[in-house]
Amino acid sequence: MSSYMIEPIGVIRSELIKLEDAPMQGDEGAPAAWLELTPQIAQGLTGIRAGDELIVLTWLHLAQRDVLQVHPRSDPNRPLAGVFTTRSPDRPNPIGLHRVSVLEIMEQKLRVAPLEAIDGTPIVDIKPVLAESAADR
Amino acid sequence: MSSYMIEPIGVIRSELIKLEDAPMQGDEGAPAAWLELTPQIAQGLTGIRAGDELIVLTWLHLAQRDVLQVHPRSDPNRPLAGVFTTRSPDRPNPIGLHRVSVLEIMEQKLRVAPLEAIDGTPIVDIKPVLAESAADR
Repeated sequence: MSSYMIEPIGVIRSELIKLEDAPMQGDEGAPAAWLELTPQIAQGLTGIRAGDELIVLTWLHLAQRDVLQVHPRSDPNRPLAGVFTTRSPDRPNPIGLHRVSVLEIMEQKLRVAPLEAIDGTPIVDIKPVLAESAADR
Repeated sequence: MSSYMIEPIGVIRSELIKLEDAPMQGDEGAPAAWLELTPQIAQGLTGIRAGDELIVLTWLHLAQRDVLQVHPRSDPNRPLAGVFTTRSPDRPNPIGLHRVSVLEIMEQKLRVAPLEAIDGTPIVDIKPVLAESAADR
């Protein structure tokens, strides 16, 4: 199979600096953070407004890509599970999936919350949340 | 910013052969399809069962990566919008996001529905759907 090259469209700026400070999911106490997008993709942001609900895809650059089984929620008492049944960052293609609300927009910077990814995490894509009945959940 | 290499974990086998046959979203009449996963990642599938709800991430390999604005739903009567406010496949990193149900499992093949991606689309990642209150929607 062919490989494909991801070119990040920006980076996360967060008060979360170390992995051990990051909650496992956004709704587990994650803070607000800035999405710093590159000027080259600015036209693609046209129409995003404060209050919008977005799905942010990231590249979890510190993940281990050769891990196929993990203890869910890093709990050694839970039996090993295939990574595709978990949200572990360790997986062959470590793409993070984050549902956020837009708080503020400053040119190519979006302030969003909640976001559990750490400072410096590359941003890969941004998508709108569709209606609750649709295929985006 | 650094680039990152995506190594597909499998490919979609579908009756949808041509882009023009594919609905825009899974819940707009998309059929069932097979996810053919590579033997190398088989261990990562441990625990997936028929009836599970999954999020499948794909690489929309026929997309145009230099497009930043589109007419939503390809309707020329709708004003141009930034691609990040749409689910257009044309975007800098053309990752597709599909919520599906697992119908059947045969070794490294998962039959899922609905799936609007066409035959031959590379599969990048599989994640569980979390509880409705969580960050996965």
